[in-house]
Amino acid sequence: MATGNINVSVENIFPLIKKFLYSDHEIFLRELISNATDATLKLKHLTSIGEASVEYGNPVIEIKADKEGKKLHIIDQGIGMTADEVQKYINEVAFSGAEEFLNKYKDSAKDTGIIGHFGLGFYSAFMVAEKVEIITKSFKDEPAAHWICDGSPKYALEASDKTERGTEIILHIAEDSVEFLEDNKISELLVKYNKFMPVPIKFGTKEETLPLTEDAAEDAKPETVTVDNIINNPNPAWTKQPTDLEEEDYKNFYRELYPMQFEEPLFHIHLNVDYPFNLTGILYFPKLSNDLQIQKDRIQLYQNQVFVTDNVEGIVPEFLTMLKGVIDSPDIPLNVSRSYLQADGNVKKISSYITRKVADKLRALFNDNREDFEKKWNDIKVVIEYGMLSEDKFYDKAKKFALYPTVDNSYFTFDELIEKIKENQTDKDGNTVVLYASDKEAQHSYIEDAKAAGYEVLLLDSPIVPHLIQKLEGDNEKTQFARVDADHIDNLIKKDEEKISKLSEEEQETLKTKLTEAIPAEKYTVQLESRDSNAAPFIITEPEFMRRMKEMQQTGGGGFMGMNNFPEMYNVIVNTNAELVGDILKTDDKETQQRLISQALDLARLSKGLLKGEELTNFVKRSYEMIK
Amino acid sequence: MATGNINVSVENIFPLIKKFLYSDHEIFLRELISNATDATLKLKHLTSIGEASVEYGNPVIEIKADKEGKKLHIIDQGIGMTADEVQKYINEVAFSGAEEFLNKYKDSAKDTGIIGHFGLGFYSAFMVAEKVEIITKSFKDEPAAHWICDGSPKYALEASDKTERGTEIILHIAEDSVEFLEDNKISELLVKYNKFMPVPIKFGTKEETLPLTEDAAEDAKPETVTVDNIINNPNPAWTKQPTDLEEEDYKNFYRELYPMQFEEPLFHIHLNVDYPFNLTGILYFPKLSNDLQIQKDRIQLYQNQVFVTDNVEGIVPEFLTMLKGVIDSPDIPLNVSRSYLQADGNVKKISSYITRKVADKLRALFNDNREDFEKKWNDIKVVIEYGMLSEDKFYDKAKKFALYPTVDNSYFTFDELIEKIKENQTDKDGNTVVLYASDKEAQHSYIEDAKAAGYEVLLLDSPIVPHLIQKLEGDNEKTQFARVDADHIDNLIKKDEEKISKLSEEEQETLKTKLTEAIPAEKYTVQLESRDSNAAPFIITEPEFMRRMKEMQQTGGGGFMGMNNFPEMYNVIVNTNAELVGDILKTDDKETQQRLISQALDLARLSKGLLKGEELTNFVKRSYEMIK
Repeated sequence: MATGNINVSVENIFPLIKKFLYSDHEIFLRELISNATDATLKLKHLTSIGEASVEYGNPVIEIKADKEGKKLHIIDQGIGMTADEVQKYINEVAFSGAEEFLNKYKDSAKDTGIIGHFGLGFYSAFMVAEKVEIITKSFKDEPAAHWICDGSPKYALEASDKTERGTEIILHIAEDSVEFLEDNKISELLVKYNKFMPVPIKFGTKEETLPLTEDAAEDAKPETVTVDNIINNPNPAWTKQPTDLEEEDYKNFYRELYPMQFEEPLFHIHLNVDYPFNLTGILYFPKLSNDLQIQKDRIQLYQNQVFVTDNVEGIVPEFLTMLKGVIDSPDIPLNVSRSYLQADGNVKKISSYITRKVADKLRALFNDNREDFEKKWNDIKVVIEYGMLSEDKFYDKAKKFALYPTVDNSYFTFDELIEKIKENQTDKDGNTVVLYASDKEAQHSYIEDAKAAGYEVLLLDSPIVPHLIQKLEGDNEKTQFARVDADHIDNLIKKDEEKISKLSEEEQETLKTKLTEAIPAEKYTVQLESRDSNAAPFIITEPEFMRRMKEMQQTGGGGFMGMNNFPEMYNVIVNTNAELVGDILKTDDKETQQRLISQALDLARLSKGLLKGEELTNFVKRSYEMIK
Repeated sequence: MATGNINVSVENIFPLIKKFLYSDHEIFLRELISNATDATLKLKHLTSIGEASVEYGNPVIEIKADKEGKKLHIIDQGIGMTADEVQKYINEVAFSGAEEFLNKYKDSAKDTGIIGHFGLGFYSAFMVAEKVEIITKSFKDEPAAHWICDGSPKYALEASDKTERGTEIILHIAEDSVEFLEDNKISELLVKYNKFMPVPIKFGTKEETLPLTEDAAEDAKPETVTVDNIINNPNPAWTKQPTDLEEEDYKNFYRELYPMQFEEPLFHIHLNVDYPFNLTGILYFPKLSNDLQIQKDRIQLYQNQVFVTDNVEGIVPEFLTMLKGVIDSPDIPLNVSRSYLQADGNVKKISSYITRKVADKLRALFNDNREDFEKKWNDIKVVIEYGMLSEDKFYDKAKKFALYPTVDNSYFTFDELIEKIKENQTDKDGNTVVLYASDKEAQHSYIEDAKAAGYEVLLLDSPIVPHLIQKLEGDNEKTQFARVDADHIDNLIKKDEEKISKLSEEEQETLKTKLTEAIPAEKYTVQLESRDSNAAPFIITEPEFMRRMKEMQQTGGGGFMGMNNFPEMYNVIVNTNAELVGDILKTDDKETQQRLISQALDLARLSKGLLKGEELTNFVKRSYEMIK
């Protein structure tokens, strides 16, 4: 039996690293600036613990583009490297200096914010450059070094006359990557990846207008000066303690994150935990519309202030991906599949920590200022309702603050609602019936009928409401939901009341025959009811169960397969006590009878939003005639 | 100056390959089956050119899961390896045997379908396995070899007593990856990645019912036998020549691709090109709804019959991502960023080749069977209209076959339409006015008015229509589009006709005063017009320009920023020649006058779909009164 070591030859692996290590070429700049940041933070640490006797000063990382020379420079004032260190860190692929540094200074360096992990980032330079130079001067008293490599595994290393401390990387940009020499492109990348990195990053200069002094002459023109253009905010709000921040600071940070967003966030949640995982961040509740699809991917994920992605799927529970803001955690594994992420223990803990924090914040808002919470409800309800449906733990917590608004803008919790309606809205079988509308305008006449009976009508208009209702009914025995147009009001909440009809049974038979002759049976089922004589002669209703199942099918997950294609079926409730209905019964003139029935049916269909197209045009024409 | 070679040490790089080479762990199985397929196809090639004197036979790749032993076996009957070859190909990371083979047998092996490229795929096994064994016997007369590696760079290599030709890979699945031992999971991966690979893949067995022989006894029960369960179709339709396929074959392949899809495709396009790039594939036009968002990502991308992704963004022009089907090309670079893809020359050529083929196919369908093409139009128009908007070359081609349907289901090309309406629908300024509706039901009365005037009315109901209209107007001088409810019909197409009012100017003044007193000015602008005495007394119109700009804003890209928030403004066109309007003028009773005006306004609003909520409820109540 032979044993040995698997061998990786640089000639084979180097082209792969260059081409395939990162699927996105543009991240080379992020990687090189991360290295420059690490070099700077290492020096900061060493000066702070007295291991480097140099002035740390106010170091800046500078990016310079030389379009004509096709060169991009990344210059830092950090720790620098000696020739020996270049040998060790650069000439050995995947030997991470950052890891070594963190191991060496384990305890003292824990919170330095050093980014590097695998020592591969530097080589991403070769994704866009045909030649790379490093000119570097260590903080130690040793000569500067100059390293050159043309992308083959061959390098040259010589002395350099650089005198300032730090490292300059020069990329000789390849022909197929010249876009990275454009100011616009560089600015775009810097804003995307480096906007909140901890060391100031300079890219070019800008003009700044000086304020006029108080004793300036009246016609004095403000003076402008040229200053460094610093593209980043090294101390973003999420890295600070909540106690050090005012409401206004959170709002300012929101504007920093979303400069194109004019609307203010409703409120924020500051995340800050370091055991059993590290996580900081600020989540914002924006005003949300009912469209669930278009609002995702607005939370940005950072690792040690370096932007990673705006796809937080798998890390944040799905219902919270509608929020905005920032999450920063070194503990989220990135280069793994989403399905793996969802199984990862740390990630699961992060996800449930975030869910809990959001629930706690909502509870606190509800408790501290209910009036304000009610005002915000319509802008945040989709998140909460979606969360109640998808996360049982959130459902349990949300019971305490989830609101059910009425059409008249009263807001109840579920318990308050049941308490309020129990007496009046419990039917003869002991079921408490919660009435709701999905559209105040379209269901206006039905809402009015319910209100006239002294009932509360909720306004539930989120697309997922049918699912939520289903869950609430399952969770609360003897509670049923019914939309106001699911039946006429006496049937929606059936009580033990005898209803007296003006018509004899025989008359009712005759009426029913007349009606079914005139009303198309394939669409409408005629149903005689003895209602108040002032109630509408005809109304059209749509049974709750079928409608709800269809709606659940349409919004996905629930209902019965293929229910979408079921024809719509309606009931025509005819009030036998209405005067008009009496007239229909009495008249023997077929034509008059037909005219009365079809006008009444059209009016009922109009109330239910079913009169359209040619039928509506004809109705309007007939009605113009009737005015004259 | 020192020079040297950059060094990659296996201890540093191996953990990275294991963890980060592929972002999705599940692809390990695809990679190992690709290797097994290559091993089989290499043997096929060598036997065909006489360099291997063994029987090729009917080789199968077998996958076996041993849940208790936590082992997964991938067994092929291919070329095998000698101990020396294991040393060379396995112990040298990133030394691609496939590349070497293709170089060696350059011309003869061109079309063998060999997949491997970089020699890294094998190591993906370590993403899920803590230990990997290879037991392999070459087709050459040499002893079999047994290689074992526990994921450290250390391996052991010894002789094995395996006698059958081929390679068996044994993965000792790691604790965090036991999901890959589940039959369901394995089946899922095989179907996803290997469904159309060129060598039969066996996973378990299945029962098959034998057909009864003709002379079987009447009560004979059909016999069942156990057969190999082959999960793939090694010869999918797209690898064949179009001339060898019938219409039915294409439909069968569609069902193979989308087993859960019951609807048949409308037609297909067979792609087949080998210069200047290699591409085969079949695209299908499914029935499309007007919702552009939910229909993407249904084209599958393969490389040499191995599934790669169902995200073809950047490869296929965006408007065609709504199609379904398969594209197979070895020439599409995969591990690069999407923005890089869009700049890649080859990919650009592929994209414009696909666009051209689709346009040609549509043109041919139009020419060969226009009637059938018209029938399919509503199911395919979104793609074509979207393509016309987004790709100028497609726009030029589509002019010949893009259809404009009328509300009465006549279909015109743009040229035919202009020819047809030119005489009747050209206004006094020489502009040909194309009338259209977006909703036959909601705009019924307006459509009727236009038809009564002898005009054609198009039905244009795609969400991007406002943009398309804008483009068509820009492209065709002296052509204007107007929705039927943008004005009353005499104004939509203004001709040089004197209109005579029954009312004197003085009477018109009085009428206008009465009307503006009764009609709220913040919503409606009253406009007196002398129309036919039979035309509606009141109608409500919505000017074209504002409405279109708002719609363009809503569907994105166009219109004016913030236009969404503009209030809706309507005109009330009052027909001074209508009898009712005469009545309004004549009556001196304030109450009657108010009643007439508000009833007429309500009827006009009803026709335009503007009467809702409380106003509708009140209107219906009033109307019930009027029946009695």
